[in-house]
Amino acid sequence: MAGTDSSKPLSLEPCPAIILCEPQLGENIGSAARAMANFGLWDLRLVNPREGWPNEKAASLAAKADHVISRVQVFETIEQAIADLSLVYSTTARKRDMFKPVIGPDVAANRLRAHIGAGGGAGLLFGRERWGLNNEEVALSDAIVTLPVEAAFASLNIAQAVLVLAYEWRRAEGEAAALPFDGDLGVPATRDQLVGLFEQLEEALDRGHFFSTAEKRPSMVNNIRAMLSRAGFNEQEVRTLRGIVASLDRRHERPNPDRQKPRPRAKTRKQDS
Amino acid sequence: MAGTDSSKPLSLEPCPAIILCEPQLGENIGSAARAMANFGLWDLRLVNPREGWPNEKAASLAAKADHVISRVQVFETIEQAIADLSLVYSTTARKRDMFKPVIGPDVAANRLRAHIGAGGGAGLLFGRERWGLNNEEVALSDAIVTLPVEAAFASLNIAQAVLVLAYEWRRAEGEAAALPFDGDLGVPATRDQLVGLFEQLEEALDRGHFFSTAEKRPSMVNNIRAMLSRAGFNEQEVRTLRGIVASLDRRHERPNPDRQKPRPRAKTRKQDS
Repeated sequence: MAGTDSSKPLSLEPCPAIILCEPQLGENIGSAARAMANFGLWDLRLVNPREGWPNEKAASLAAKADHVISRVQVFETIEQAIADLSLVYSTTARKRDMFKPVIGPDVAANRLRAHIGAGGGAGLLFGRERWGLNNEEVALSDAIVTLPVEAAFASLNIAQAVLVLAYEWRRAEGEAAALPFDGDLGVPATRDQLVGLFEQLEEALDRGHFFSTAEKRPSMVNNIRAMLSRAGFNEQEVRTLRGIVASLDRRHERPNPDRQKPRPRAKTRKQDS
Repeated sequence: MAGTDSSKPLSLEPCPAIILCEPQLGENIGSAARAMANFGLWDLRLVNPREGWPNEKAASLAAKADHVISRVQVFETIEQAIADLSLVYSTTARKRDMFKPVIGPDVAANRLRAHIGAGGGAGLLFGRERWGLNNEEVALSDAIVTLPVEAAFASLNIAQAVLVLAYEWRRAEGEAAALPFDGDLGVPATRDQLVGLFEQLEEALDRGHFFSTAEKRPSMVNNIRAMLSRAGFNEQEVRTLRGIVASLDRRHERPNPDRQKPRPRAKTRKQDS
């Protein structure tokens, strides 16, 4: 569909970041950039793009969405890519064994509008072409966004998934005014602050031999992160929690004559879990 | 986004036909087929695909949407492609100088649901990669569907446009029940019946030298078709109109001693226009 009116100004209004995790093909990055531009999004972030950056195929498929391509930011880890955001949704077509709310694109768009309208930073995570997002990436998000696809044919190209969310973002314009933003919760913590809490907690748990085996550690970490990011802690609450973790952690640093005996450690684990 | 559950049955429920007019690239046909499959559409029709049919690239990009690709129908003209349909929307990002209602994808999807739910055939026209739909194609449709794109970046890939409409079709599932279908209008005429009326009328107008110049004929034909297809005539009304045209037309066939004189012809033209 032709119809671009080059005399119209490009919108660079506050909008959700689109974060592509380890995208494999430049073409998909370019098509995603074009889909974003169609509906007024411009903040594109890449975590470890396989073909590196800049990428010629991406620029070509972006079909002149230069204002998106030129602003692309590349990160080494997903934690860095979402550090400044305080509302993050994972897009996935697969059910996860994780206690995360699951919402549709329309609900997601309305919440993003409300959050960004109130001055917060927000983003949407999209996974790899082949297998989507890892559980540890989903665990970092507030909720899962899934599309009402046909169960027998659920596999969406990344750019197509970006398009539906961008379309809903545009459609939610104006509707957000009707959504009262609940300011009583305080300023939500940024993802950076939350990850800081997680890492502090996990290090403390390592020291306390909380994780029964090395194999089980990753899934246990995911479950903890999922659980704690679901709560929507504000900055003050994160500070409080970090204080709690530090306090519990320091307890183990005290000289403890019983340290090598199994019994007291078992007791501690029971209290923690 | 992975997540396809191959144990689930594919839906082949009644749905709108997706009609691609002279698609240039097999890749776009394939991507459109995949987008359709994601949201339960399966009736794909091609008018004069440039690279012919079947097309290897289309099959490859369709990502196993075999149930769509194997059912593709190819037509030589758009009139043939929509002959069995009684509700047809044109998708376009460009304003047309034509009196056609313009609706959004959500409204379109609800009307398609109501129409198909009542047993009617319906379809969505998509134009060429480079310049979209011609005015004579738009003229054949009931209304124009346009997407809420950024004015400064309105150009959507065909498969992306198909995806948004397919997504809205899926989203409208269930909502249609709340829409009362107005059965009082009778069975709407199929596009075949309407085109029959148009052609009969245009031939009659040619015989009567209605079109002042050959250059102006195409745009005048479009305006007439646009006007007459907007009315939503039912089958009986089309039959009645054809009878009217035939009756007026036959008047010229009567031996008329004044035929070569300019004056009576001028008078006839005035009555017709």
